[in-house]
Amino acid sequence: MSGERPERPGEDALIARYFAPLAGEGADGLRDDAASLTPRPGHDLVLTADAIVAGIHYFPDDPAGSIARKALGVNLSDIAAKGAAPRAYLLTLGLAADWTETWLSAFSAGLAEAAAAFGCPLLGGDTVRTAGAAFINVTAIGEVPAGSMVRRRTARVGDRICVSGTIGDAALGLALRLAPEAPWAAALDTETRQHLRDRYLHPRPRLALAPLLRRHASAAMDVSDGLAGDLAKMTGGVGRAEVAIADVPLSAAARQVIADEPALLDTALTGGDDYEILCTVPPAEVEAFAAAAAAAGVPVTAIGTVLGGDGAPLFVTEAGASRSFAAGSYAHF
Amino acid sequence: MSGERPERPGEDALIARYFAPLAGEGADGLRDDAASLTPRPGHDLVLTADAIVAGIHYFPDDPAGSIARKALGVNLSDIAAKGAAPRAYLLTLGLAADWTETWLSAFSAGLAEAAAAFGCPLLGGDTVRTAGAAFINVTAIGEVPAGSMVRRRTARVGDRICVSGTIGDAALGLALRLAPEAPWAAALDTETRQHLRDRYLHPRPRLALAPLLRRHASAAMDVSDGLAGDLAKMTGGVGRAEVAIADVPLSAAARQVIADEPALLDTALTGGDDYEILCTVPPAEVEAFAAAAAAAGVPVTAIGTVLGGDGAPLFVTEAGASRSFAAGSYAHF
Repeated sequence: MSGERPERPGEDALIARYFAPLAGEGADGLRDDAASLTPRPGHDLVLTADAIVAGIHYFPDDPAGSIARKALGVNLSDIAAKGAAPRAYLLTLGLAADWTETWLSAFSAGLAEAAAAFGCPLLGGDTVRTAGAAFINVTAIGEVPAGSMVRRRTARVGDRICVSGTIGDAALGLALRLAPEAPWAAALDTETRQHLRDRYLHPRPRLALAPLLRRHASAAMDVSDGLAGDLAKMTGGVGRAEVAIADVPLSAAARQVIADEPALLDTALTGGDDYEILCTVPPAEVEAFAAAAAAAGVPVTAIGTVLGGDGAPLFVTEAGASRSFAAGSYAHF
Repeated sequence: MSGERPERPGEDALIARYFAPLAGEGADGLRDDAASLTPRPGHDLVLTADAIVAGIHYFPDDPAGSIARKALGVNLSDIAAKGAAPRAYLLTLGLAADWTETWLSAFSAGLAEAAAAFGCPLLGGDTVRTAGAAFINVTAIGEVPAGSMVRRRTARVGDRICVSGTIGDAALGLALRLAPEAPWAAALDTETRQHLRDRYLHPRPRLALAPLLRRHASAAMDVSDGLAGDLAKMTGGVGRAEVAIADVPLSAAARQVIADEPALLDTALTGGDDYEILCTVPPAEVEAFAAAAAAAGVPVTAIGTVLGGDGAPLFVTEAGASRSFAAGSYAHF
């Protein structure tokens, strides 16, 4: 249950070389067994933990820096959706038997770059060997003015449903990766393929929206498991979501793919890994919310309404037909 | 990279069934993507993360409840060593392909029992599949009066070195598990074997010592990677530790094993998984510290002194010979 690996540096040397340079205030250069953290006066901390596992949440041959950025990004996406600003994170890295220093060096460089871009220093963590697939767990810590964390299940009937950015690109990027020779995939130009792959590889937590969610949203979450399934989670017990499919924002790339292969619309609506913000906003606030979001550089689009009643969200076509997605949620599990 | 498992409940159902009942204040029954937490006025939070991996840190056939207790216990041992009281924890559970609901039910029952005993409710986390070995990551959060976290590297020359409880039992319990038919192992009675195995399986975080460490200790850490190696970490850059081997507290079971097989003294001193407190205390404080610890139900023993100079800790035999352990630290990694 233990073993030295004389040919490669031990845990302490790895931490000193690759992770100590990333440490923030309170982390004591990762030379202690714990770190201290205090929210600013009048603020609450917001905590979340998500792991990504090789072969489940990412491809083992994805670039190491991209894997690091994804591990941090998916957690900060949750932080942003709660209206919080990133404060720090703890990292647990499970290294499989075939790890190399080249990989680890690229991983820590990607992590440093992402953490700097997101304004979120490393506070602590652990590095372990695993007999199986590599994994990365991040516990992310954000901060909100006291009592202002935006909840998931607090939408009200009559609220408008809004999403940021575009939906489905990451799921189509994954589909492209899994079936690069499919007719619809082969028809794409290089730039379009690159856009879709980039959206799958590189989640962009919508940190700029956090203060606007606190001001305008009645409920919010990030879209990680697919729009249809996550919308069901947000509105379940509150009301029934009705979405106009034509209003769901799609990128030019996604529109092209779906025009060529209409069945992939379902992939876009249910596929996951969007890491966009899904929120509900009182009707009187929608215009101000959208304008403030646009000013912050993030497009948001109203796609539907929370109606009374219950049941899976209804997706209404331009012809007036209603669809729902019973399975709904993309299951990483 | 995705898959439904219709024959077994999905992640949301698992969380609702096995983990939601463990959720504390701020966790909203684990029905949101993040939790909120605020330290009491005048307090700092103390955060640490450690993972345990099947086949590395525990045996896959260890009782599931014991694995859960270990995952939480090793983290709360760090919290206690920093002088902090447990506040909450986040759990990331990586389930291997062969997981069963029977296992998960026993795991969550053990976790609930340990969390209740340690006064540390569940705040959030993640449940994922892994293509490889199961793993459990815990991020533990404690609380200390502002500015009073006890650091690892703040010992002073002249301080006495103290440890809680007894050293080596867990490492001998592991040795017993790995070689149950060794002559020294076969000579043990059932109760002795049980004691050693229990110390390996069930770390006991020394939470009762936390306030006393804040009052009396100049530096502290928990003994997780072996006394010799952890002492080197604590005193490196400060001075040279000198320990009287005869003063290192051993259980009756450990004394019996070492009497039968003297080479196992080294296992006891370097083997790890003790989860006792190692600390330095100014000489004038040792008596008061030991008395207060005894009153709190935890024996502490002075085993040596921080001398000037540098180098690996010296372990002095009764005959006056000095030994050091160059490799020192038990490497899980």
